[in-house]
Amino acid sequence: MTARRSFGSDNQAGAHEAVLRMMARVNEGDAVAYGGDPWTQRACAELQALFGARGGVLLVLTGTAANVLGISLLLRPHEGVICPASAHLNVDECGAPERILGSKLITVPAPDGKLTPALIASRLGDRGDVHRVQPRVVAISQVTEYGTCYTLAELRALGEFCRSEGLRLYADGARLANAAAWLGCSLADIAAPMDVLSFGGTKNGAVGVEAVVVMAEDLAASAPFQRKQQMQLTSKMRYLAAQFLGLLEDQFWLRNATRANQMAGRLADGLRGVPGVELWQKVESNAVFASLPPAHIERLQREWDFYLWDEPARVVRWMTAFDTTEAQVDEFVSAVQETARDT
Amino acid sequence: MTARRSFGSDNQAGAHEAVLRMMARVNEGDAVAYGGDPWTQRACAELQALFGARGGVLLVLTGTAANVLGISLLLRPHEGVICPASAHLNVDECGAPERILGSKLITVPAPDGKLTPALIASRLGDRGDVHRVQPRVVAISQVTEYGTCYTLAELRALGEFCRSEGLRLYADGARLANAAAWLGCSLADIAAPMDVLSFGGTKNGAVGVEAVVVMAEDLAASAPFQRKQQMQLTSKMRYLAAQFLGLLEDQFWLRNATRANQMAGRLADGLRGVPGVELWQKVESNAVFASLPPAHIERLQREWDFYLWDEPARVVRWMTAFDTTEAQVDEFVSAVQETARDT
Amino acid sequence: MTARRSFGSDNQAGAHEAVLRMMARVNEGDAVAYGGDPWTQRACAELQALFGARGGVLLVLTGTAANVLGISLLLRPHEGVICPASAHLNVDECGAPERILGSKLITVPAPDGKLTPALIASRLGDRGDVHRVQPRVVAISQVTEYGTCYTLAELRALGEFCRSEGLRLYADGARLANAAAWLGCSLADIAAPMDVLSFGGTKNGAVGVEAVVVMAEDLAASAPFQRKQQMQLTSKMRYLAAQFLGLLEDQFWLRNATRANQMAGRLADGLRGVPGVELWQKVESNAVFASLPPAHIERLQREWDFYLWDEPARVVRWMTAFDTTEAQVDEFVSAVQETARDT
Amino acid sequence: MTARRSFGSDNQAGAHEAVLRMMARVNEGDAVAYGGDPWTQRACAELQALFGARGGVLLVLTGTAANVLGISLLLRPHEGVICPASAHLNVDECGAPERILGSKLITVPAPDGKLTPALIASRLGDRGDVHRVQPRVVAISQVTEYGTCYTLAELRALGEFCRSEGLRLYADGARLANAAAWLGCSLADIAAPMDVLSFGGTKNGAVGVEAVVVMAEDLAASAPFQRKQQMQLTSKMRYLAAQFLGLLEDQFWLRNATRANQMAGRLADGLRGVPGVELWQKVESNAVFASLPPAHIERLQREWDFYLWDEPARVVRWMTAFDTTEAQVDEFVSAVQETARDT
Repeated sequence: MTARRSFGSDNQAGAHEAVLRMMARVNEGDAVAYGGDPWTQRACAELQALFGARGGVLLVLTGTAANVLGISLLLRPHEGVICPASAHLNVDECGAPERILGSKLITVPAPDGKLTPALIASRLGDRGDVHRVQPRVVAISQVTEYGTCYTLAELRALGEFCRSEGLRLYADGARLANAAAWLGCSLADIAAPMDVLSFGGTKNGAVGVEAVVVMAEDLAASAPFQRKQQMQLTSKMRYLAAQFLGLLEDQFWLRNATRANQMAGRLADGLRGVPGVELWQKVESNAVFASLPPAHIERLQREWDFYLWDEPARVVRWMTAFDTTEAQVDEFVSAVQETARDT
Repeated sequence: MTARRSFGSDNQAGAHEAVLRMMARVNEGDAVAYGGDPWTQRACAELQALFGARGGVLLVLTGTAANVLGISLLLRPHEGVICPASAHLNVDECGAPERILGSKLITVPAPDGKLTPALIASRLGDRGDVHRVQPRVVAISQVTEYGTCYTLAELRALGEFCRSEGLRLYADGARLANAAAWLGCSLADIAAPMDVLSFGGTKNGAVGVEAVVVMAEDLAASAPFQRKQQMQLTSKMRYLAAQFLGLLEDQFWLRNATRANQMAGRLADGLRGVPGVELWQKVESNAVFASLPPAHIERLQREWDFYLWDEPARVVRWMTAFDTTEAQVDEFVSAVQETARDT
Repeated sequence: MTARRSFGSDNQAGAHEAVLRMMARVNEGDAVAYGGDPWTQRACAELQALFGARGGVLLVLTGTAANVLGISLLLRPHEGVICPASAHLNVDECGAPERILGSKLITVPAPDGKLTPALIASRLGDRGDVHRVQPRVVAISQVTEYGTCYTLAELRALGEFCRSEGLRLYADGARLANAAAWLGCSLADIAAPMDVLSFGGTKNGAVGVEAVVVMAEDLAASAPFQRKQQMQLTSKMRYLAAQFLGLLEDQFWLRNATRANQMAGRLADGLRGVPGVELWQKVESNAVFASLPPAHIERLQREWDFYLWDEPARVVRWMTAFDTTEAQVDEFVSAVQETARDT
Repeated sequence: MTARRSFGSDNQAGAHEAVLRMMARVNEGDAVAYGGDPWTQRACAELQALFGARGGVLLVLTGTAANVLGISLLLRPHEGVICPASAHLNVDECGAPERILGSKLITVPAPDGKLTPALIASRLGDRGDVHRVQPRVVAISQVTEYGTCYTLAELRALGEFCRSEGLRLYADGARLANAAAWLGCSLADIAAPMDVLSFGGTKNGAVGVEAVVVMAEDLAASAPFQRKQQMQLTSKMRYLAAQFLGLLEDQFWLRNATRANQMAGRLADGLRGVPGVELWQKVESNAVFASLPPAHIERLQREWDFYLWDEPARVVRWMTAFDTTEAQVDEFVSAVQETARDT
């Protein structure tokens, strides 16, 4: 039994067949554990090259762990992390950053989920005041939790601002592939202004793997130890590596993301003009945020699985995935239209 | 390129084919994320029944995480964990217990890796002294890090001692299947005296999954939140569940462990009488610890992969796995014999 | 050289002479360390009686420590603390709660610094969602950071709401004496709805001492160990006890607070009608928050020491202390009037 | 009521009168809080000069806090601290290092409480192994917990070894004054090989104050923030400063330590030749460790307060303090002699 027909999340999708195929392929005999195997070497080398990451790449098991490990390379406990109030880090990680990092998140309301130099600057007033957590890391999400994307120019501006202010820049890249697909740029282009970022496999068609990409060489030394201490060093790492090798094969990572984005675009296009339905955010990846009347939401949720994102604001989130079909989108658009007509 | 012919570790082995087959089988369409899928429900229910665990079962990603999460249900930071000095928790987790739990490990030298009520009692003298960490959890490993097993009577005695002293009992069960196979008992028999324990899938033929088994019902409520906060909540959990479903099918978990144990027994038998080779620990699972002359070790390691466990004591560890063959054991025994003859 | 003439903070004041006298008095010969001395026994017993605290009283060294220790008795790391955004805990403790508790603060904007059941309820929507920190403690300040006081009825309502919702209630009582003086009630009246609270000595005329007051008996057992682990167990505790004994003598604690409150009232009275000066909060303790033109602020700060609380809002804070004199207040009122006239 | 006649601890002594006098002297009017006052400036500057500390000096409230804060400047959580098993840090701080630092202590048995390059080297074998905490700090105590002192040559050798191995050297100086008095050297001489050390006031005659002395300039920047986050920033800091100013006046710190050492020497001299009494450690400060028959211990403890240090080994600890008198020592020696005769 599976989920109701779903625009619930890209992590409700299964795994891409290239991922499972590669996992089966590496299942041959003994291999050195903890990443000493040739597949891990290869996957990390390929990722490192794609990102231009001088500090190397580490595979971990969850998105939360990628964020926490990535940021842990950049700060000490008395230092804080500036992030949008909507950040996954702040909202959806059950306090993992506070517990594991021992640090405070310094949040900024950001209506489109995006930080700007001005928003960051609004949180820098207390530097030097010994009673206040000292901002050290700026954490953005690319794609944001609202499905929006930073442009390359915006990323460069953030990077320059951070450097000029002595801050480090981290990006939660749980949906980084979708951003690259949207922007039509390389992963290295996105990564260039960052100190550390994550690259999500799971929402891109993997079974469960994320990469922590360390751009700066001087941050690399402690990373393997921190990964272990943060309980993310898996012994049979070849099966993590295999997932990325599957996604990297024939650029499936990009094709998966592109397809998901296209399906979101198709969905958004189909919704335009439906009475009562309004897009709440720009559609720049594989997410469509829309507001619609509560009665419509209720009726649609009887048949379809998706999140009511913000109840007072009547905002819902519809996510597409690498395996969303045009037929599925069209059927859903019809359902929304029908609901609008009937309700 | 894979590892040299290996008695290095049971985590250098690949995955059992039933595991990969089940992972492919659950790869169909959407499924509710974070464990709300039917496969996770089924795997956890089956495990819960096997253990008689009133508090439920949670799937996590690494053995270190299973230990830390399991123990975190049982203590607060000013409380400590009594464990053998040889415990994986103490030696091999890069300080994860200290960092994540914020607690101190109170270690006891234990020549065979096993705690006894007397050894535990030796660490209880400071109760009530405000300058000293207060012992609260006793953490054992079953199988121990030295390949030895507690008998059921020993486990019951530990359980009774802990209850009488107001202590909680945790077991690191990374190789629990091997213990059940050795003792010829059920998992519930082993688990009965525990408050929480882990059940390792990875070393038993999985790709990478461990279960945290909560025996006491009153410990269950916080466990899902702690799992998330400890960065162990995977979104596509069906693929973790599938691994256990594969191992539970046709009792592969027990057959895998039995085979590994048998191969270790065969290896130990073959070594008896070889000049210069002495067993260092009883062989009660899938590990053979032996001492032999440094020159022999060096020569054997040119062809075979295994750990030099304790250099000054010239002790090596030879691990077998679910896929170790009789031919492989016999070939290695010959190599050891030959080395003894020639060196 | 001392501070400029100051309405800067009640912690810029010196110590009350009864405090220093008592510290000298206990300085006789040897005494059992770590609180085993008779003065600590007596001070804690007297405080316990004043509060009706069944769980006992512990002396600690800073207000931050009192807050962190107090709350640590009430929650585990995956649980969170609901507090006003303006809470000292959130703003002024350099991330100590996050680092030491490993917990997240769940903040609520509160214009007058006070929580209400409705404000708390607004942060309870995510209970049971494994991705979200679970609210467990409500932390208020009495007096608040804005100088306002909860009435006893408001405190009772908070207590009842918390109990009905399975939440624990903590109060930061750095200025609790001022609240008791303002409300004209006993410390036990204020403390009755709380699970744990602090009672500040430092801002009341001590050299440096705070009490953690544990109302509920079942919370007491771990407190001495947590105090030690949180680095707050002083060896020569008689000198902490002496400070409270000094303040309790002849009810100096209440007389000190009453005087400070009166001086704030006198200041507020004097400011009424001064052009450009507006009270920003009700004056219910020893703090006066007012807004006035930037040029006035700048000019006054040349001669007088006080905080510019909120620069964009042009709000300043003027604090009085146990040793503020009427002449000092009147001189300052004249200065404000003069500034208003001239600027 | 005070303690029984006591050789219990130098923290059972009261405060030196110069300390209380100076605390009274600084009690004049308002002063900038949190260390901005002139007395704190002066005390820290004088201490900095005495130690030759380029990174500055911070006042804190307890010895445990001094150790934890000092070490926190030197390591990150995945790094560990090599210390003698007997270290206060390991034994007597209720797990504060593990909780606050999140780090593991790597202990070495050291019969006289002193580390050597060889003992440290014995704990360096796992560097680079990702499963093992990476040693980063070596923490010694000067005076040690056994009352012994490192010579300056020994300290230099430790410093050189640490530098050559990429380790940092920390010293717990709760009784540093006693070491300086014993060695007849300056504080700067002792401090020269260190990265950070503490300088204890409390056991030297203060009410309760310790200094964290930061030798290296590059470690200074984060120290004030870490102090605040670790709940050690007191608001009325002039009263901490006054304690050190009192001790620095007329070199009372040195005179106090010298006297305490002399009294321990006198005690040790008096015990020589008493049947059944054997010195267990060299007497190089203000502590005398001796073994004697259990019946003697029991009888002496009826009248005198001191610690039974190691029950199986029948070792007791007798501490002297700045205010121990010759008469008190002589009376105690007589009591020991009498006990030996009668029992």
